[in-house]
Amino acid sequence: MEHTRIKELLKSEEFGRHVIVKGWVKTFRNNQFVAINDGSSLNNIQAVVDFENTDEALLKRVTTGAAVRVSGVLVESLGKGQHVEIKVDELTILGDSDPEKFPLQPKKHSLEFLREIAHLRFRTGTFNAVFKVRNALAFAVHQFFNERDFVYMHTPIITGSDAEGAGEMFKVTTLDFDNIPRDEEGQIDFKEDFFGKATNLTVSGQLEGELAAMALGNIYTFGPTFRAENSNTTRHLAEFWMIEPEMAFYELEDNMDLAEELLKYVIRYALDHCADEIEFLKSRLLEEEKSKPQNERAELNLVDKLNFVLENNFERVTYTDAIEILKRSKPNQKKQFKYLIDEWGADLQSEHERYLVEKHFKKPVILIDYPREIKSFYMKQNEPDTQGRHTVRAMDILFPGIGEMVGGSQREENLDKLLARMEEVGIPSDEIDWFLDTRRFGTAPHSGFGLGFERLVLFVTGMTNIRDVIPFPRTPNNAEF
Amino acid sequence: MEHTRIKELLKSEEFGRHVIVKGWVKTFRNNQFVAINDGSSLNNIQAVVDFENTDEALLKRVTTGAAVRVSGVLVESLGKGQHVEIKVDELTILGDSDPEKFPLQPKKHSLEFLREIAHLRFRTGTFNAVFKVRNALAFAVHQFFNERDFVYMHTPIITGSDAEGAGEMFKVTTLDFDNIPRDEEGQIDFKEDFFGKATNLTVSGQLEGELAAMALGNIYTFGPTFRAENSNTTRHLAEFWMIEPEMAFYELEDNMDLAEELLKYVIRYALDHCADEIEFLKSRLLEEEKSKPQNERAELNLVDKLNFVLENNFERVTYTDAIEILKRSKPNQKKQFKYLIDEWGADLQSEHERYLVEKHFKKPVILIDYPREIKSFYMKQNEPDTQGRHTVRAMDILFPGIGEMVGGSQREENLDKLLARMEEVGIPSDEIDWFLDTRRFGTAPHSGFGLGFERLVLFVTGMTNIRDVIPFPRTPNNAEF
Repeated sequence: MEHTRIKELLKSEEFGRHVIVKGWVKTFRNNQFVAINDGSSLNNIQAVVDFENTDEALLKRVTTGAAVRVSGVLVESLGKGQHVEIKVDELTILGDSDPEKFPLQPKKHSLEFLREIAHLRFRTGTFNAVFKVRNALAFAVHQFFNERDFVYMHTPIITGSDAEGAGEMFKVTTLDFDNIPRDEEGQIDFKEDFFGKATNLTVSGQLEGELAAMALGNIYTFGPTFRAENSNTTRHLAEFWMIEPEMAFYELEDNMDLAEELLKYVIRYALDHCADEIEFLKSRLLEEEKSKPQNERAELNLVDKLNFVLENNFERVTYTDAIEILKRSKPNQKKQFKYLIDEWGADLQSEHERYLVEKHFKKPVILIDYPREIKSFYMKQNEPDTQGRHTVRAMDILFPGIGEMVGGSQREENLDKLLARMEEVGIPSDEIDWFLDTRRFGTAPHSGFGLGFERLVLFVTGMTNIRDVIPFPRTPNNAEF
Repeated sequence: MEHTRIKELLKSEEFGRHVIVKGWVKTFRNNQFVAINDGSSLNNIQAVVDFENTDEALLKRVTTGAAVRVSGVLVESLGKGQHVEIKVDELTILGDSDPEKFPLQPKKHSLEFLREIAHLRFRTGTFNAVFKVRNALAFAVHQFFNERDFVYMHTPIITGSDAEGAGEMFKVTTLDFDNIPRDEEGQIDFKEDFFGKATNLTVSGQLEGELAAMALGNIYTFGPTFRAENSNTTRHLAEFWMIEPEMAFYELEDNMDLAEELLKYVIRYALDHCADEIEFLKSRLLEEEKSKPQNERAELNLVDKLNFVLENNFERVTYTDAIEILKRSKPNQKKQFKYLIDEWGADLQSEHERYLVEKHFKKPVILIDYPREIKSFYMKQNEPDTQGRHTVRAMDILFPGIGEMVGGSQREENLDKLLARMEEVGIPSDEIDWFLDTRRFGTAPHSGFGLGFERLVLFVTGMTNIRDVIPFPRTPNNAEF
């Protein structure tokens, strides 16, 4: 490889060194100063062309978006905001970029417009920063678990089970839609399908994760999960990545400790390793918020917000206590909530979660011990309270501006209680007989949780639409690229 | 958390320390010696029960597979093959395991049988080792790219494009099979489907990876990919994980260098971090091979094989030279190949790849410059050779016992050549117009490859069936668990 990456050169002090750089033109000023970016850094390197001795036809091809090769000498820069530049010996156009047609010009484009050209938005500073932070967070997740001897498991994406219960599923098939096979009774004959039965895209790797945890001890998944739900919000995707640790012999407190430790670890990692990117995103956000009325702007800037999370313990609150707080809250008393809280058992809506996190506690909150009826069948049942109310050992971690970041629980390890609950909610036990084997053979307390990766990236980048933190978002009516 | 993981205790010298262990019973000998495993290590810890002072009914419940909690004192062991054991104060059964029903008894089970109970096979030594090695390899992949400033990209799993061209695809849909919507012309109306068009499961993240590389420079993917092919072999899965790096400004030589460096890095990482597991798998393989005739056994044991790969350069050979070698080879001359090689242009079969790798060069081989007609449309075209033959800058890395481990190429960066090739093979350009934008705006040389993760795990673990190196394999007619 003859070239050096710009990130390396920007840190270099080797003035006088002959270097070759390859990248894309961001701007070209005064027929002389070419700002070149190769993606390795948010920052460009400036190449100074001796325009008096350079062919004019060549200079005309130095346009935004063109790919160039530049060779020259690394010199100390006198310009503001940079300490090196390249005095160009030779400039070659590798690939032209017609300025009449290239959609990214050196000006501010709206995020909506950039979403339409998601295949080119990686070339902007904002998306360079977002995807660098996303990368750092993903690596930090793996490093966190690796340091703690967790085993990374690839749980299946195509599943024959529809008992995962976390949401609507996509079907996976090779059947010919023009000629759906039927059995003798006229039912669809899935024996003819690829897997010999109906299959779906997974909504969670938890059930399979439990199988592995009940043998390997501590495991985690990090893979794509799917919801075929018609939610067109800024916080939902049909395809998203989830991290799901599952730990044998962990009780709910251990589970909460691990989740809080993980979140702080990865946020700290991003702050340490993406300082430039997060600084850039902080400025972007401040700029964006200028158009908002004062009372809608964030109280803390992005960096302060992230540090605030690191420096404070998450508030741990029972559902029952949270309901009391919400009942007595001003927006409930003044009937400003869309869904008023009047009794124990109500499911919490986004407005309630936001109130607790953003107004009442003003920090991340872990809500535990939810009513059994509004949570999944596999959660461990508490003893009924003095009023005979049934709760489960669930935990949801709520973050400011995001809502639910983590959902988890201690699992019901008692076979009889689990079977009884499955019957109550109508899950046939033969569907997941393999899952029940964990309770038949050497059952033990265990716990786990799911962390929505894009929500984490949203929080750390300060972006506000989840479509802007995944390369190619999949949402209802949208599977472009 | 009150307990300590067994992996930690096995390394401990703190004799006299009071400890609590939780895990599953592997064996119980002489009413006294309980071998306990918690998954953290391949190795068990021995707990010594004072059976004379322990309730007999309790001792009866200490059966293979039962979950137990043991508290006691860590003492130096006089037994063979262990240096610590626990002198038990208190033993509690967390979960029973009926010996009449638990399928895993302390004896050798066949891999075929264990595949049927894939949800329990994690509890065996072999699969503990396999999935620890798999975990180490996955982490090593991330660490390798992280150290080199590559950006991890999550390319989409659900794709609206069917031009990826790497194989048969699974359809993804929410349409009701009992009531497929039709448009006015009687065609299936995909506007009614979730994404408003026909969608599939991805066979490769390459095209999207190229988009990102042409902005961020160096990227890689590591995610699931799918093939709806009816291949029931020991080397094919319908769902498998693939690593696909893509690098702007890399030519074929750079691409080969990176792939070889990656493979050696991750194999060395596994040897360094999974020494016990690989030693165990080496013994397993030697044992398994005892039933084979001498001439079918591997020449090198597992550890020696892995070290051999580390210590030797991969052989880089053009397709044209390989054909000459194959033509003159003994199995070709003696007509022992099923597919005889008689002329340039023939696609290489597994038997030819194995001959080159296992008999002729006896090490990993990188085959380059394949005939254009047998490779994908996006590969960079070489100038025709002196005989007018057209080749492309492809590279396949072939490994002994595995066959194709890596497939890659320098990409065709010239828009006109790419369009011409697409027309020849019948890919409509409007299908992937976004992909072509990389060639319209600042095109540049770039390269990439795909590494099949399960084939890597197969090689490093010495397992022989790909179903045994992924937790829950998906193959034709099989999507259990």
